[in-house]
Amino acid sequence: MKGTLYGVGVGPGNPELMTLAAVRIIRESAVIACPGKDARQSTAYRIAVQAEPSLATKELLAVDMPMTRDRAELTKSFRQGALLLESFLKQGRDVAFLTLGDPAIYSTFAYLEERIAGLGYPTGYISGVPSFCAAAAEAGVPLTEWDEALHIIPAGQMDESELEETLRLPGTCALMKSGTRMDAVKSALAGSGREVYMVENCGMPDQKIYRGADSIPDTAGYFSMILAKEEKGSNQPSDDLSEGAEKRRSESESILNPLDSRRK
Amino acid sequence: MKGTLYGVGVGPGNPELMTLAAVRIIRESAVIACPGKDARQSTAYRIAVQAEPSLATKELLAVDMPMTRDRAELTKSFRQGALLLESFLKQGRDVAFLTLGDPAIYSTFAYLEERIAGLGYPTGYISGVPSFCAAAAEAGVPLTEWDEALHIIPAGQMDESELEETLRLPGTCALMKSGTRMDAVKSALAGSGREVYMVENCGMPDQKIYRGADSIPDTAGYFSMILAKEEKGSNQPSDDLSEGAEKRRSESESILNPLDSRRK
Repeated sequence: MKGTLYGVGVGPGNPELMTLAAVRIIRESAVIACPGKDARQSTAYRIAVQAEPSLATKELLAVDMPMTRDRAELTKSFRQGALLLESFLKQGRDVAFLTLGDPAIYSTFAYLEERIAGLGYPTGYISGVPSFCAAAAEAGVPLTEWDEALHIIPAGQMDESELEETLRLPGTCALMKSGTRMDAVKSALAGSGREVYMVENCGMPDQKIYRGADSIPDTAGYFSMILAKEEKGSNQPSDDLSEGAEKRRSESESILNPLDSRRK
Repeated sequence: MKGTLYGVGVGPGNPELMTLAAVRIIRESAVIACPGKDARQSTAYRIAVQAEPSLATKELLAVDMPMTRDRAELTKSFRQGALLLESFLKQGRDVAFLTLGDPAIYSTFAYLEERIAGLGYPTGYISGVPSFCAAAAEAGVPLTEWDEALHIIPAGQMDESELEETLRLPGTCALMKSGTRMDAVKSALAGSGREVYMVENCGMPDQKIYRGADSIPDTAGYFSMILAKEEKGSNQPSDDLSEGAEKRRSESESILNPLDSRRK
């Protein structure tokens, strides 16, 4: 009997945003794989162990990937990672691979899953809450209104003209991984006429919310999510009752965060 | 003491994909608001009551919105809905408004929240798993690989040229609400050269997965999610170990679904 490989989304940071399914699969899996050099030091482990303390007693596996954009080197690492996972799966043991957010969005899991499935093992994705949903919740702004589109853009490798083109797309843009190019991103945002929010370290104790492109600092952490919303056009009705919300959003104070442990 | 309005994402359909936070907020809230004419008949209620049976004993509130695109009529309904919610909040009772998927993505909650916040009441978004993540999980395909962008597009109101333009965006397109215009959507997909999947009634007992634009029927339900992935370019390494997964995806059979109650 072959073991099953699960990609388990642990959500955006707050352990309460883990799904019931994620907690169950972690509880039922004999082996837990975490991305990084040291499983217990990984962000995904530290989130999940708060929701499911039995995790601390499981067989933990560190699946490290090099910080490189060299595709050949990455492909070699994925293959090695898959062989490591397979050594457990072929013993009939299930392996839960923890991943931040959702396993279908920018997760190493996809590359490992492809190989493991190719070797004939059963696999499954356990969906999680993506970081852009959590950032919208923390800022208290919807990602999409009416028929607006939503664009999830990894902005870190874009030059200024690509950023400007992206910010002409209709709807809302969620810019990920822009911490490394914050100067170019800020400049493109300032010229876009969009309503801008940035959530740094979303759901973590050092979370910070910025409102407006001008308020964003020149250096920001890797876990920074920028939401750039199209300005409301004249075809969207204004409403006197909504003025308070508009005012509140322009203030630096966060909305109520019911998941904030400091409020419990 | 004023009550708090929570927008609670109950996820894409499977009660196990609800978050721990969603379950807790439902348990702790005195009043539960559900979208529709009859709270107990709403999809959101039927999902949530499976994860938190105490829901059946709560005070339930139906917040009905007309099926119209008339913005003035909708705005009037949002205002009436907000006044209904306020009648409970001003008694100091918390209200959890249930919403499919995530409350920041195409949810009526945003319009109600704006008004309730404008009236001075505390509000909070409780993030949930969006439907496009669940559709990717069911189809066993990642939404984004490498540095690909992800575009969430409400395709139902687009004409063919708008659809064709959308399908020229780099990365993956998730087309929502396309059931009403399936003929135009199919035609645009067929000419796009993209890898196409459709998940109908995702996570429900009558779920169906289609692979390839040709396989999509001319009529499909409202809860149909189309994933249109950019074909892998030559800059993405092929790998002999991944061939099995590619083959499997081209077959009509679904991957293992660990959340499928029929397997439990």
